[in-house]
Amino acid sequence: MRRIRITLQYDGSAFKGWQVQPTGITVQGVLEDRVFRLTGERTAVIAAGRTDAGVHAIEQVVAFNTISLLSLGVIKRALNATLPPDVRVVDIAEADINFHPRRDARSKRYSYIIANSVDIPVFIRSHSWWVRLPLDLDAMRNASSCLAGSRDFSAFRGSGCGSNTPVKSISLLEIVRSDGIAFLFATLRGNFIRISIEADAFLRHMVRNIVGTLVEVGMKRMPPEKVKDILESKDRRLAGPTAPPQGLFLEKVMY
Amino acid sequence: MRRIRITLQYDGSAFKGWQVQPTGITVQGVLEDRVFRLTGERTAVIAAGRTDAGVHAIEQVVAFNTISLLSLGVIKRALNATLPPDVRVVDIAEADINFHPRRDARSKRYSYIIANSVDIPVFIRSHSWWVRLPLDLDAMRNASSCLAGSRDFSAFRGSGCGSNTPVKSISLLEIVRSDGIAFLFATLRGNFIRISIEADAFLRHMVRNIVGTLVEVGMKRMPPEKVKDILESKDRRLAGPTAPPQGLFLEKVMY
Repeated sequence: MRRIRITLQYDGSAFKGWQVQPTGITVQGVLEDRVFRLTGERTAVIAAGRTDAGVHAIEQVVAFNTISLLSLGVIKRALNATLPPDVRVVDIAEADINFHPRRDARSKRYSYIIANSVDIPVFIRSHSWWVRLPLDLDAMRNASSCLAGSRDFSAFRGSGCGSNTPVKSISLLEIVRSDGIAFLFATLRGNFIRISIEADAFLRHMVRNIVGTLVEVGMKRMPPEKVKDILESKDRRLAGPTAPPQGLFLEKVMY
Repeated sequence: MRRIRITLQYDGSAFKGWQVQPTGITVQGVLEDRVFRLTGERTAVIAAGRTDAGVHAIEQVVAFNTISLLSLGVIKRALNATLPPDVRVVDIAEADINFHPRRDARSKRYSYIIANSVDIPVFIRSHSWWVRLPLDLDAMRNASSCLAGSRDFSAFRGSGCGSNTPVKSISLLEIVRSDGIAFLFATLRGNFIRISIEADAFLRHMVRNIVGTLVEVGMKRMPPEKVKDILESKDRRLAGPTAPPQGLFLEKVMY
């Protein structure tokens, strides 16, 4: 028995998320189907981050077992030949038979993209959240400072979350602005914001709930100091709305 | 009577090109319809570049007449409120009543993006041409040198071209490579090539026919020196295939 580790890139726009669902096409479902076509084996593919419907991955890490003797290069090429064009195996390696992409991850980094401009961002409209009202970044940065470190994130926990503890440790929370965004070789003018969060693990909807709350602060609907109160309340009802999925990217998994 | 000049950005993926067609949705058709809804006037919108089906525009320039007294800001906002999300008015200005976006243009720049990698480029698959075979850029650059300056481009002229002369003047032909492409705030690893062509005017399919021919050279299916022979032959049948539309961007119009 071998365990195969794959770095996967996908555009989440057309998927009902990572995890197999009763209805709808999921990245896990498609990948397990293509592994079956290749090896004849029904295998469970585990991912480092179970991304929601519409969420993208630049470097998701997944793993599965197989008794196949095919070389890594052949497996990569065969999967890419049958996967749809919005999912790609970008890297493949042999892994320890006990390797678990999520439990073994030291940390993960998610980035959330906001197009903070008067006009819809034509070329990245499926890869960003269009927020029309000007955001106050200083207020958002002030508000976010209380979230770094080891905290109980119950107030930012989505319903149905299966994590056994609401305590997670955020090692990086960065809010960066740009006047123009690089798109291919050109620069699209506009006002773009990236919120990156790195943590040992995440609760369900944690990034999107934090982003939704920081955007409330940025729009001056909520004072920056209230975020600390929300965190300490552990009450989901006090936090802001969940930011939409299409702005979220699983960027990197660290081991 | 006023003449309004608009800088338009669009993702060409869902359109049958710029120009109104007997069937299918075109950018011109959509824009003329929205101008009619706003002003009640049936007006012809003229563009600097009549982009083909699937071709994108970062800064297309268009113009139309109106007797409306609405302010520029109101016209911009009203059009953007009713246009689909893949077409945006990014700038608007009053123009001289005789302004013609195409005839008055001093030059235009088109850029063509090639993803020259083993794997399909997930996030830019509708905005680039995926070429799997490694391309020899030096050979392509050598081949392209004969195309700069004032030349008869009949060999690269698409059928149905309405230009009254096949002689156009290329002032820039640049081939640039990158190991990773900026996408939002992240860098997608891969091998990407941009071919930019600036000229006073273009024949139908001229950029795509030049790119298709240069890619033949890059794949070593054609020696670099043959491009000069093709140009001088003025025979379209000798040039390479037309590169697909989704890699092409109308980048800028200079006046």
